[in-house]
Amino acid sequence: MATELRIFAVRGIAEAAAGDRPGALVADAIEAAQLPVADGDVIVIAQKLVSKAEGAVVALRDISPSAEARAWAGTYGRDAEVTEVVFQEARRIVRMERGVIIAETRHGFICANAGVDSSNVAPGHVTLLPRDPDGSARRARDILETRFGCRVATIVADTFGRPWREGVVNVALGVSGLRPLDDLRGRMDRHGRRLHSTVVAIADELASAAELVMGKTAGVPAAIVRGAGEWIGDGVGTALVRPAEMDMFR
Amino acid sequence: MATELRIFAVRGIAEAAAGDRPGALVADAIEAAQLPVADGDVIVIAQKLVSKAEGAVVALRDISPSAEARAWAGTYGRDAEVTEVVFQEARRIVRMERGVIIAETRHGFICANAGVDSSNVAPGHVTLLPRDPDGSARRARDILETRFGCRVATIVADTFGRPWREGVVNVALGVSGLRPLDDLRGRMDRHGRRLHSTVVAIADELASAAELVMGKTAGVPAAIVRGAGEWIGDGVGTALVRPAEMDMFR
Repeated sequence: MATELRIFAVRGIAEAAAGDRPGALVADAIEAAQLPVADGDVIVIAQKLVSKAEGAVVALRDISPSAEARAWAGTYGRDAEVTEVVFQEARRIVRMERGVIIAETRHGFICANAGVDSSNVAPGHVTLLPRDPDGSARRARDILETRFGCRVATIVADTFGRPWREGVVNVALGVSGLRPLDDLRGRMDRHGRRLHSTVVAIADELASAAELVMGKTAGVPAAIVRGAGEWIGDGVGTALVRPAEMDMFR
Repeated sequence: MATELRIFAVRGIAEAAAGDRPGALVADAIEAAQLPVADGDVIVIAQKLVSKAEGAVVALRDISPSAEARAWAGTYGRDAEVTEVVFQEARRIVRMERGVIIAETRHGFICANAGVDSSNVAPGHVTLLPRDPDGSARRARDILETRFGCRVATIVADTFGRPWREGVVNVALGVSGLRPLDDLRGRMDRHGRRLHSTVVAIADELASAAELVMGKTAGVPAAIVRGAGEWIGDGVGTALVRPAEMDMFR
């Protein structure tokens, strides 16, 4: 367990356009800002940057809303085209009440609007979640490791709401080079008692930690977390999605 | 938004006993370790330390399990006395399946076993959540501010599971001296578009960040987060509990 963790905001990242490589945009900004990168660093990248670079952006003028999307949008003062994109991105609607749509995406994430988002994107457009966030994380890691010549991990992260608690927190959608879950089962506590059911979602805690320097309006879509090297290893973000048959809240 | 966040583990905190003041235990360890404390620091303290100091510990030999607790414990290989304490701590059972009890506490928290926990406590005992986590945070803050002569915030935190995602993450139960939610609604994004529904649970993200240096087995029940001064202010942890009538997953 590290004694100290440091989290550096990566400022000056260029606005991403379709065809950009997110890892290269982040690496360029890290170099320009002369930020250190070292073995064991975890680099957290905002989903929004990745989605734009991967072209996961939809022009609303190209969308023809269904009758259901029009009805919902009309009832709750929402945009019919955005609602239609949400329906298309949803593998399953989990809740749909009072103007709020909670949906399961094709990845298995359960989140508001199936991850469709109109903030920090050009007017008339929305972003979708990356098709394969683990692949996005892996490609960014390849670029960052080559550029800086050291072993790092990457997390592609987005802010999700939670049942029962107010506010959103950043969570890990895609992971590369990191054990996303730290399974303490079998370890002993301070009283020599075996810990039973403690699996800590390290990747989500790292994403949340990074968000504190990234923010929503600050235009800082990446951060470097130093001091988390003990979790460097193999793993993917899909391991954080609870299998449906194990979930009591679907 | 800070450019850098630093998180320091507070090592060497004495094992808490009933009657101890959590703030004093943490302050003593900070002084002994010669850690810096500065205006705007956020000090995260593990619930377990607070519960022990406040005497929120139950000796299982004093518990007479109900028939229902015995039946559940027998079916799933659980401890009948622990199950009985869970029932007593629960204001409402939210889910009770396959040996797992998700319950709402009297505070309104929804978590496994109503917060009753047998890890890192003497054999034959369990800890309960603090009666008033915001009060616990406030008392600890008073002590820390007096000792170090600066304005700090405190968070009393525990690891909770979440629906839909694997693993636990640290969240804020009690808060003092901090705005736990950062309401970005009304602010503009980079495209001059107003952000709609983005309220970030800063206190939970701070708790998760701190957990990365605290851990479950490491015996580090506190951490100092530096660089979060912008959220210093007035607020309490109860603001993080979503009111029942606003929650779609009860």
